[in-house]
Amino acid sequence: MIRVTVWNEYIHEKEMPEVAAAHPNGLHGTIAAALGEDAEFVVRTATLDAPECGLTEEVLQQTDVLFWWGHAGHHLVPDEVVERVYNHVQCGMGMVVVHSGHHSKIFRKLCGTTCNLSWHDDSRERVFVTNPAHPIAKGLPAHFEIPHEECYCEPFWIPEPEELVFLAWYNTGEVFRAGCCFHRGNGRIFYFQPGHETGNSFFVPEVQQVYRNAARWAAPVLRVSEIDCPHIPELEKVTG
Amino acid sequence: MIRVTVWNEYIHEKEMPEVAAAHPNGLHGTIAAALGEDAEFVVRTATLDAPECGLTEEVLQQTDVLFWWGHAGHHLVPDEVVERVYNHVQCGMGMVVVHSGHHSKIFRKLCGTTCNLSWHDDSRERVFVTNPAHPIAKGLPAHFEIPHEECYCEPFWIPEPEELVFLAWYNTGEVFRAGCCFHRGNGRIFYFQPGHETGNSFFVPEVQQVYRNAARWAAPVLRVSEIDCPHIPELEKVTG
Amino acid sequence: MIRVTVWNEYIHEKEMPEVAAAHPNGLHGTIAAALGEDAEFVVRTATLDAPECGLTEEVLQQTDVLFWWGHAGHHLVPDEVVERVYNHVQCGMGMVVVHSGHHSKIFRKLCGTTCNLSWHDDSRERVFVTNPAHPIAKGLPAHFEIPHEECYCEPFWIPEPEELVFLAWYNTGEVFRAGCCFHRGNGRIFYFQPGHETGNSFFVPEVQQVYRNAARWAAPVLRVSEIDCPHIPELEKVTG
Amino acid sequence: MIRVTVWNEYIHEKEMPEVAAAHPNGLHGTIAAALGEDAEFVVRTATLDAPECGLTEEVLQQTDVLFWWGHAGHHLVPDEVVERVYNHVQCGMGMVVVHSGHHSKIFRKLCGTTCNLSWHDDSRERVFVTNPAHPIAKGLPAHFEIPHEECYCEPFWIPEPEELVFLAWYNTGEVFRAGCCFHRGNGRIFYFQPGHETGNSFFVPEVQQVYRNAARWAAPVLRVSEIDCPHIPELEKVTG
Repeated sequence: MIRVTVWNEYIHEKEMPEVAAAHPNGLHGTIAAALGEDAEFVVRTATLDAPECGLTEEVLQQTDVLFWWGHAGHHLVPDEVVERVYNHVQCGMGMVVVHSGHHSKIFRKLCGTTCNLSWHDDSRERVFVTNPAHPIAKGLPAHFEIPHEECYCEPFWIPEPEELVFLAWYNTGEVFRAGCCFHRGNGRIFYFQPGHETGNSFFVPEVQQVYRNAARWAAPVLRVSEIDCPHIPELEKVTG
Repeated sequence: MIRVTVWNEYIHEKEMPEVAAAHPNGLHGTIAAALGEDAEFVVRTATLDAPECGLTEEVLQQTDVLFWWGHAGHHLVPDEVVERVYNHVQCGMGMVVVHSGHHSKIFRKLCGTTCNLSWHDDSRERVFVTNPAHPIAKGLPAHFEIPHEECYCEPFWIPEPEELVFLAWYNTGEVFRAGCCFHRGNGRIFYFQPGHETGNSFFVPEVQQVYRNAARWAAPVLRVSEIDCPHIPELEKVTG
Repeated sequence: MIRVTVWNEYIHEKEMPEVAAAHPNGLHGTIAAALGEDAEFVVRTATLDAPECGLTEEVLQQTDVLFWWGHAGHHLVPDEVVERVYNHVQCGMGMVVVHSGHHSKIFRKLCGTTCNLSWHDDSRERVFVTNPAHPIAKGLPAHFEIPHEECYCEPFWIPEPEELVFLAWYNTGEVFRAGCCFHRGNGRIFYFQPGHETGNSFFVPEVQQVYRNAARWAAPVLRVSEIDCPHIPELEKVTG
Repeated sequence: MIRVTVWNEYIHEKEMPEVAAAHPNGLHGTIAAALGEDAEFVVRTATLDAPECGLTEEVLQQTDVLFWWGHAGHHLVPDEVVERVYNHVQCGMGMVVVHSGHHSKIFRKLCGTTCNLSWHDDSRERVFVTNPAHPIAKGLPAHFEIPHEECYCEPFWIPEPEELVFLAWYNTGEVFRAGCCFHRGNGRIFYFQPGHETGNSFFVPEVQQVYRNAARWAAPVLRVSEIDCPHIPELEKVTG
């Protein structure tokens, strides 16, 4: 059993009727439903408008993997919440950061970079698997199509990914490192490019497969309550 | 010509007579002198007690590589100064973080981790070169001795180093990844373990060679004024 | 169920009575017994003196993870057998290379380097976990002791490990990257330093735990019958 | 001064009049001319039809960086020559492997993988810089165009590149890791995708800039005569 919390700022759905129509339970509801197809996952959701963004200490302690979707409201997430999520990642909680979450406070803080990129709307995307034996690519074909997606273009200002799983091709002429793995402390972080609020990526079967694969990959191998910086005794009697 | 700024909190020297005696111009002065032996470097220093910690926008614009020594005063460095240094690293400024600087706000922010470790005083250290062809190991023997140094012990909670240059052995029984390279944005960061305020590492010839090598390695290949996140036009006429 | 084949050159046991006494079923038998304590593993062994070194196409097809112990007989392994093992790793078979296997033809071929190192006999070793959340470190303490082991010393001429799991400290003054992960094709390779024929590492409980953890980690995520280099049709109608 | 040897199998030029016409001095002559525009380089060439492929011990000792272009004649390069080149890379000689050289014996041997990929002819390629501060990207725009190039497509069966410098977009719908850095022993290796015998990549100014940048990057930091595996004395008097 893997306990997933899907966090979403939940702003566009309230302001854009077509987003609301496509995602009647919010983008978080759509992602949660895709995960819920596999009985291995116990899924809950949390949003910006809840107290403490729905990410209390108690919720995070019960979260193995946190999905993150944000865009217009990055600056509205309080620093204390970001710090709390950050601490849980260091202790072992996994994260899956989706699309415009590249610019979230938490992803930038974990990367140590701006996470900037170049972008424009209205592309068709083809996602290529660069690492077929990676657990996040499990069951996927060599490449798959996303009929309508926002284009993100290199350079993507992240640290060199520890494992590059996907590359994106766009019919508008660009490329992007679309699936990137990082480790921070005991935690695993996966960034995935598809997922624009007005696109249909969320319903592409291969994208949903990536969600499930990524949640399994990011689930903690080791979860501790604290990473400390202890004074230790000498291990040997001093010599020489 | 490489323009180096050596930053030091400059606290222990004022409180501990033996540190003041060993470093009459401060730890920054000692490091600056080691760099100054090579005419390639133009060196200045900056300290916590100067306005804006001596790290104004103007100073940073004229700095190719920033050395950082801090310990007792990490929390006294204002967040605005940290942010300013961080932005310059993203744009291309290099950094060399020395010893207890592992816990500085800026190094943690660049790493995206706690940078915790285990530690105790009073060891003898032997530094091994793991990557003899790395520019930072240039001219060094296979290993060299530091008669008196604080012991730092694994696990060191950093991201997996992109290049591991040095490993440390301690006579008290521990090991540590003592020389680690990272890239963030356009900037290069080197962390180096030796450098305790009451030790003599600063005067070990091989340590001074590492300072000079690291300054050369970390000097900008590309320095820009800003990393942005631009809306770009489509590169191709949309097809299919 | 994970199918493990433990390969051993099986030379020292026939020539050195003390090795035979410590390992009545050969070093392969000792490793196999450690793995066999977990019902998840189905273990067989193979040795240099068997036809095709016991590593026929059929055996390798039925092997998820291949352990490798060699020392005096590296040059006696036919190139065809090395090529066969290499092909299976590319297709997804995992490998765990133990101690003096660093100089085996297969490990050198997978690394693309000499895998040389410095060495001497008769050390006491302490193994440190550098990556506590790595699956191969599961259940291990921060460090553990090996009372009698051969010393391997840096520089270790391997490619920069993709994941460094263990570092070794020796009471004779050296350090070594003792647990290193690599990926080649679909296959995962783990190198582990302890395991000298005249030492007692094989019976240290933590070492045996590493064997089991490594076998689980190296088991194939994806196993294919061939990695090819196909001519493919264009994915788009040529434009522009 | 950097001493470059450009190696070319020199087969297509003798069999295909249009290749001969485009490259009157062979592909090696074209690459050598691009390098020769910078007085920093002293360039010579070598081809398959020379004794020992023109890569004698003497030539390699006087070579800082070896460029490699091969395609139809990979199997004609004797294993002894491959071994000799391999040894020089371990000792510090740099290599720049161009286009179809991905399948050369030497590149496969250095990678430890098949270096397979998917491919078809007749594409238009756009090369993106993913790492603008990398020395090999110096002076290049964010992306540049190659009007006519063979398409190479992921998955590219190489080890995870230590530094990814370029990504390729093709108008026929594919992507490829087009500029990849590796380290083996003391040597640096750069792989670069553009360079099909019937294309015009060799004359694209940005491609020629990459040749010069890559030659500078791959030049030895440290060159030794041998990588050995020595028995060493204990560094400490045995304790405990």
